[in-house]
Amino acid sequence: MQTMNVKLNQSEKIIEAAKAKAKEIGVAMNIAIVDEGANLKCFLRMDGALLGCADIAIKKAKTSRFFDIDSGEIGKLSQPGGSLYNIEHSNGGLISFAGGVLLKDRNNKSIGAIGVSGGSVEQDREVAIAGANALQNRS
Amino acid sequence: MQTMNVKLNQSEKIIEAAKAKAKEIGVAMNIAIVDEGANLKCFLRMDGALLGCADIAIKKAKTSRFFDIDSGEIGKLSQPGGSLYNIEHSNGGLISFAGGVLLKDRNNKSIGAIGVSGGSVEQDREVAIAGANALQNRS
Amino acid sequence: MQTMNVKLNQSEKIIEAAKAKAKEIGVAMNIAIVDEGANLKCFLRMDGALLGCADIAIKKAKTSRFFDIDSGEIGKLSQPGGSLYNIEHSNGGLISFAGGVLLKDRNNKSIGAIGVSGGSVEQDREVAIAGANALQNRS
Amino acid sequence: MQTMNVKLNQSEKIIEAAKAKAKEIGVAMNIAIVDEGANLKCFLRMDGALLGCADIAIKKAKTSRFFDIDSGEIGKLSQPGGSLYNIEHSNGGLISFAGGVLLKDRNNKSIGAIGVSGGSVEQDREVAIAGANALQNRS
Repeated sequence: MQTMNVKLNQSEKIIEAAKAKAKEIGVAMNIAIVDEGANLKCFLRMDGALLGCADIAIKKAKTSRFFDIDSGEIGKLSQPGGSLYNIEHSNGGLISFAGGVLLKDRNNKSIGAIGVSGGSVEQDREVAIAGANALQNRS
Repeated sequence: MQTMNVKLNQSEKIIEAAKAKAKEIGVAMNIAIVDEGANLKCFLRMDGALLGCADIAIKKAKTSRFFDIDSGEIGKLSQPGGSLYNIEHSNGGLISFAGGVLLKDRNNKSIGAIGVSGGSVEQDREVAIAGANALQNRS
Repeated sequence: MQTMNVKLNQSEKIIEAAKAKAKEIGVAMNIAIVDEGANLKCFLRMDGALLGCADIAIKKAKTSRFFDIDSGEIGKLSQPGGSLYNIEHSNGGLISFAGGVLLKDRNNKSIGAIGVSGGSVEQDREVAIAGANALQNRS
Repeated sequence: MQTMNVKLNQSEKIIEAAKAKAKEIGVAMNIAIVDEGANLKCFLRMDGALLGCADIAIKKAKTSRFFDIDSGEIGKLSQPGGSLYNIEHSNGGLISFAGGVLLKDRNNKSIGAIGVSGGSVEQDREVAIAGANALQNRS
């Protein structure tokens, strides 16, 4: 069973793109990348970024890779009365709001995920997507 | 006090039946069995099954045996305002949606539980029940 | 970065071979397999196997894959005065005595690990090696 | 009370210097930086670096900053019979062998720490020092 894993040079490009977007919108962010096995590959906390958002960024990335979906999609199903209510108690703690985005290879297969936390969830997601897009644009 | 415990050969039949059902409906599943003491007896992650669902399958089985009830029944009582609100915080983390099903002996006494995760909760439950039924059908 | 992962049908053959060896030497064992990302793939507790050895079997497999080496080799370095003294406190708890053995593909690359616990460490290791050999012998 | 904290641009220089040294000696490393509050600031896992050494790199950095000393110095006191025997049980797990090195400002005040893991402890320490020196050499 062949699997692909996000590489360090890819991770560095992704982090740089996310950081550039964070600066552009003026929000200090925590940015995390996990690999195909949901293990931490890269992490960066920008100066002044909220301290508690470091763990959230890492958990968003893990949540996304754990279920092969953007983290915010999990949150739609984990609300009271939802089919996945309180799924956040699994896997050492999930974060199920937006800001965790999958990293996919050319064949649309997940090779890891990026998680961003520090601003509003919309801002977090915008920065995560900017990071993920840097992977797609690789030549 | 005599206690009955799910045996390995029973567990293997249960897992096989659950795996067959998972293949039949075309969903890669994580399948876990715990014994009468809620301790892990067997576990299997099918190729391509979601990574984060391994812990969920195990927690569903444990939740079911911890409270001697299908895991989804707990979720009905753990909603905001419910009598067991946020019970998921106990026992190292519960999973209270469907997919955890009790394993019972001929005298209707619990001897363990099966937990399944990887598809929709309906699919998870269907596969768990197929597994549990393999125990009932034993000759 | 291409990686290989132990497959379910391989894992089942490995578990069967380990179980056969355990029966041959007359010791009830806990047998665990983790994949390339050190995540649990398969687990089995034989009837009568020591309860506390379930977690040990899983941690031996993880320890082996975490450091790409047989678990007992870590223990040689983690003794008082050794270069890796008390490394066992990392990664949520390691088990650094024998019984964790790497699973390697034809190119000698790790694709996972097996961990066995329930007997003496020599017996544990013998059973783990019997399991790992089943992978090498695949046609 | 004014506190100084390692900044992101400093952390990036430190990580780059450590990575360059790791490449020079030909060992794939995990490299972590924590700030003055012992909270994760930056992390990087080189391609092929041992999976279990990620947590160790982070714990080395934290151990160093927790006690304002190189991590290996703690290990000298935590041996059986030593004054800090088994201190590794504190703070969610310490790593007390070499590879964690303090980051100090011009006034010799700690502003964080770097932790490196992936090679021998001597190699880990060499890479950590190369990283820490990049901070001292700043103009």
